[in-house]
Amino acid sequence: MKLRQLSTAAADFDAEFERLRHWSAETDAAIEARVAGILADVRQRGDAAVLEYTARFDRMTVGSVAALEITQAELQAALASITPGQRSALEAAAKRVRAYHARQLEVCGLSWSYRDDDGNLLGQKVTPLDRVGIYVPGGKAAYPSSVLMNAIPAHVAGVQDIIMVVPTPDGARNPLVLAAAAVAGVHRVFAVGGAQAVAALAYGTATIPRVDKITGPGNAYVASAKKHVFGQVGIDMIAGPSEILVIADGTTPPDWVAMDLFSQAEHDELAQSILLSPDAAFLAAVRASMERLLPTLPREAVIRASLEGRGALILTRSMEEACEISNAIAPEHLEISAEQPQRWEPLLRHAGAIFMGAYTSESLGDYCAGPNHVLPTAGTARFSSPLGVYDFQKRSSLIEVSAQGAQSLGGIASELAHGEGLQAHARAAELRLR
Amino acid sequence: MKLRQLSTAAADFDAEFERLRHWSAETDAAIEARVAGILADVRQRGDAAVLEYTARFDRMTVGSVAALEITQAELQAALASITPGQRSALEAAAKRVRAYHARQLEVCGLSWSYRDDDGNLLGQKVTPLDRVGIYVPGGKAAYPSSVLMNAIPAHVAGVQDIIMVVPTPDGARNPLVLAAAAVAGVHRVFAVGGAQAVAALAYGTATIPRVDKITGPGNAYVASAKKHVFGQVGIDMIAGPSEILVIADGTTPPDWVAMDLFSQAEHDELAQSILLSPDAAFLAAVRASMERLLPTLPREAVIRASLEGRGALILTRSMEEACEISNAIAPEHLEISAEQPQRWEPLLRHAGAIFMGAYTSESLGDYCAGPNHVLPTAGTARFSSPLGVYDFQKRSSLIEVSAQGAQSLGGIASELAHGEGLQAHARAAELRLR
Repeated sequence: MKLRQLSTAAADFDAEFERLRHWSAETDAAIEARVAGILADVRQRGDAAVLEYTARFDRMTVGSVAALEITQAELQAALASITPGQRSALEAAAKRVRAYHARQLEVCGLSWSYRDDDGNLLGQKVTPLDRVGIYVPGGKAAYPSSVLMNAIPAHVAGVQDIIMVVPTPDGARNPLVLAAAAVAGVHRVFAVGGAQAVAALAYGTATIPRVDKITGPGNAYVASAKKHVFGQVGIDMIAGPSEILVIADGTTPPDWVAMDLFSQAEHDELAQSILLSPDAAFLAAVRASMERLLPTLPREAVIRASLEGRGALILTRSMEEACEISNAIAPEHLEISAEQPQRWEPLLRHAGAIFMGAYTSESLGDYCAGPNHVLPTAGTARFSSPLGVYDFQKRSSLIEVSAQGAQSLGGIASELAHGEGLQAHARAAELRLR
Repeated sequence: MKLRQLSTAAADFDAEFERLRHWSAETDAAIEARVAGILADVRQRGDAAVLEYTARFDRMTVGSVAALEITQAELQAALASITPGQRSALEAAAKRVRAYHARQLEVCGLSWSYRDDDGNLLGQKVTPLDRVGIYVPGGKAAYPSSVLMNAIPAHVAGVQDIIMVVPTPDGARNPLVLAAAAVAGVHRVFAVGGAQAVAALAYGTATIPRVDKITGPGNAYVASAKKHVFGQVGIDMIAGPSEILVIADGTTPPDWVAMDLFSQAEHDELAQSILLSPDAAFLAAVRASMERLLPTLPREAVIRASLEGRGALILTRSMEEACEISNAIAPEHLEISAEQPQRWEPLLRHAGAIFMGAYTSESLGDYCAGPNHVLPTAGTARFSSPLGVYDFQKRSSLIEVSAQGAQSLGGIASELAHGEGLQAHARAAELRLR
């Protein structure tokens, strides 16, 4: 395998590192234009346009959008159709994800207020969104775990109407995805996908209700459509290719680290897997593990393409330097595979999720540890966060000024309002002065 | 004044209400194209491009971008130059805004974690953004209060580098704006504005450092530039025209309500002021107050244009119905001007800020009550929140799976990973099984 190896001590490291980090989120003008057309069409013609695009792109011809709804009975039938092992795994994962997000709600998702010395009440009221849409891809990237990770935080937040859309090309439904919708408490499901599904959720049609926010992954058309409707509705981040960065002190079995790198690389050819260690012998051992294990994996070709295209082993001068490099990358998934992960964790400033210790393989977090697997990619962990209960809530400031408070605040507001040339603001404050 | 009056009992109410709510956020293709050009140019040529656009748009010709930096000494000089009354008002407002946001940090901005029954550690690490950019408009909408409202939450969050940009056309600096920057703890200020300032912050130049997030209001060029760079950096919401909705039970002095409606309308011709009340006599009294008070205000022309264009008095059947209508609008500012505001507050689901009781004029909240005055507009309070400390922080999931936890989680993850066709994920979990 032609997996590149860098060393921070090399003269050309900065240039090599820059090349490694490069990923362009440039959008395709042709896709943008087609998406804009689909959005405008669905906005204007509603159900009729949704039906036409579904017939054209998914080869599904039905008489009405209502016929594209997948009923609760069908979701329950899907849940009954999967193996008992799959069902109990789905339910166990859902239970853990729910427990974690319930804790999140409790810690940082509740209304609060206080009264200051003048008797003014100040605070924030936190309320769930009324209705959200969850986009679930069809085809090769149809992941039941994503249904759990999007729908459960919405459910825990108290969203009353969770609408899922999922394309079913040629009518092919994924029973695990539908079973996950049943387990996660999705309220309605429509077999619609692409930009037309995003448009239907953003603008509403006679059959598909308008939502307040759309989350969930999708292809370039879906991503472009979400960016277009941002402002009309809320959206989550636009995801780039998935990434893992492992910082290893050399104490983890090399096979474990090799498989963790593979588990990212198997997602797609653009996924990125990077291993950092100050231990050259460990890097060599992981490389040997990779060579030995790769041929045993069904997705060998994808993994090889991903690793050769965007992967790297990086020899660092120290664990501290490895942490600095990780901060510069701000990876989506960060494993600190070390004997004392708590020692390094405070040095790690930017990451979607931090997996600490040799036992914490990313895959456990992807499915069932509890935290969300929807994480900021492509360096956006510098400024954004995992999907959470907070994404399905919004806050309203609460202010109740007392008669006494209006006296002290009125003078300040009046002075500043005059300074800004906003006399009606000033007068509104002054009218409350005794 | 031709201020429209609606009644929810009228047959044409729904249609009239729809017309009232209409506001189009359509973007101007010509502006988009010009902005895209400026962004690409600054990205490629850095400082040189910033200098050229500043010379062209702000008629400021200097030899280097460094010469456009406004030093801390200059900020302090501005603070020393304003009147003692202005200075103490600025400082008092800053103190209250800081206290409120400190409470916000304490309630919902701290890291948390717990261990589950298997000894797995789960939680979230909350950290400040490294560096943020604050856009402050020049010209007629140059508001020192906006400097406080953007910079203080960033400061409270612990952002180490707060970079402010503000255009100074023809070299004209606003001393109150610079004084506010000094009071709010802004770290660096550049006299640059427009799309070129957004580009410099998003991509970095030799002189202006790249930031992680850009907040603050601006004109159509700035809004378009922020939308373009979203993803490269974080941004706050794109603001539409400002709005107030007052629900009155008829117990507030009509002059107070009239002036509160004016204080929104005076912002600009597109601002929207709506009064809802079940008390027809009160609506008439407020109208009479408006007719009497309007000629006394310097910004009479703007207020009249705004009220005649987008304002309304609405007679409702009840306070409950007024609350429902308010929820449909999801206003930026919502005054519940009633004797028992606490009675109605639970019915109010969507609003940027809720001002409770007759003494709580919006203007007190705009300047100094403590909560932020940067609020979601144009119905986006359905899914978004006031600017806050949380906008200057990001979260990383924390996961540490114990050896024991890896046994129970491994089986679940393996089952689900096989179900998704991701065998490396499954193997990574299985390797940790004893």
